[in-house]
Amino acid sequence: MCEVTIRLPGWVERFVDESPEVFLSVEDRMRFVIALARQNVQHKTGGPFGAAVFDDAGRLKVPGVNLVVSANCSVAHAEIVAVTLAQIALGRYDIGNGGTADYELVSSAEPCAMCFGAIPWSGVSRLVCGAREADARAVGFDEGAKVSDWVAALYGRDIEVLRDVLREEAAAALREYADAGGPFYNAGPPRQ
Amino acid sequence: MCEVTIRLPGWVERFVDESPEVFLSVEDRMRFVIALARQNVQHKTGGPFGAAVFDDAGRLKVPGVNLVVSANCSVAHAEIVAVTLAQIALGRYDIGNGGTADYELVSSAEPCAMCFGAIPWSGVSRLVCGAREADARAVGFDEGAKVSDWVAALYGRDIEVLRDVLREEAAAALREYADAGGPFYNAGPPRQ
Repeated sequence: MCEVTIRLPGWVERFVDESPEVFLSVEDRMRFVIALARQNVQHKTGGPFGAAVFDDAGRLKVPGVNLVVSANCSVAHAEIVAVTLAQIALGRYDIGNGGTADYELVSSAEPCAMCFGAIPWSGVSRLVCGAREADARAVGFDEGAKVSDWVAALYGRDIEVLRDVLREEAAAALREYADAGGPFYNAGPPRQ
Repeated sequence: MCEVTIRLPGWVERFVDESPEVFLSVEDRMRFVIALARQNVQHKTGGPFGAAVFDDAGRLKVPGVNLVVSANCSVAHAEIVAVTLAQIALGRYDIGNGGTADYELVSSAEPCAMCFGAIPWSGVSRLVCGAREADARAVGFDEGAKVSDWVAALYGRDIEVLRDVLREEAAAALREYADAGGPFYNAGPPRQ
């Protein structure tokens, strides 16, 4: 009753070991998180979402994948897993260290309502998204109720937002998951 | 890099042991989470926020407190800690088990943007709040950007919302924390 542990699946460490340490372009970083999303589905460890935190030199700090079903934890979206692991790795709850350190969260899809709310608390200074929220909704994922001007809301908190980076590849990973009959794990009555 | 553990402080288990197992009225349940919030401050284990998940008979399933600073985890708001622990205790990511089980999340304050987004994913069927968002803002907490009709948005997802339960006591706990100079731990540049 008193503790919860969220652990990345074993394949993630092997995958990171085989990947570059530094990803110079934003497309390279996006390709990495889309690969995480695909691998997560192939290994049956969660939904088709990957994320990672990188420093301002493009060096991978931590990866994250969706672990909702495998960890029995509705909070364990890829972005939440990544920022939480980054905070543990850095030893501080504010990744940006009071505005003195620049870290980027790269996600294979735009944030749901929960992840949108979590991003300003995390201390990252940039969000990079692949698939659009509409792409996630189109295949059946519920994204929740976000303010319509969510990008402006992040900019207003000094968080830069870059959208549509390799959007087509990212959206294709979502469609593949849906086409293969992957589970949709939003709480509530079963979907008709 | 690969795992994160969120653990309730030791005093919580002792506090629960000394508390009733069943809280028949909603005010009793709110009094319990306000006490958690106050104890969390007295024990210096986090911010002035408490939450808990109860079953439909008023039986305490799990408690939660804010652990942002002590756990170095910006996600560890009281509500997130409570729903996550409930999911571990129940062995499922959907507390409501596909709409067949009624659980209530009681929180000493209205949800921030992140917690608002997390509640529909958790599977609880009722949210009970003490202090208003305005009370939290008034003492210096940043609540983030929520849709203005957030209560209606939860109702629209079959989540009942009960506000202002012992609001004054709950708001007083927030004011005491601020008056005592407790830290405000939102990410970003230091407050002026």
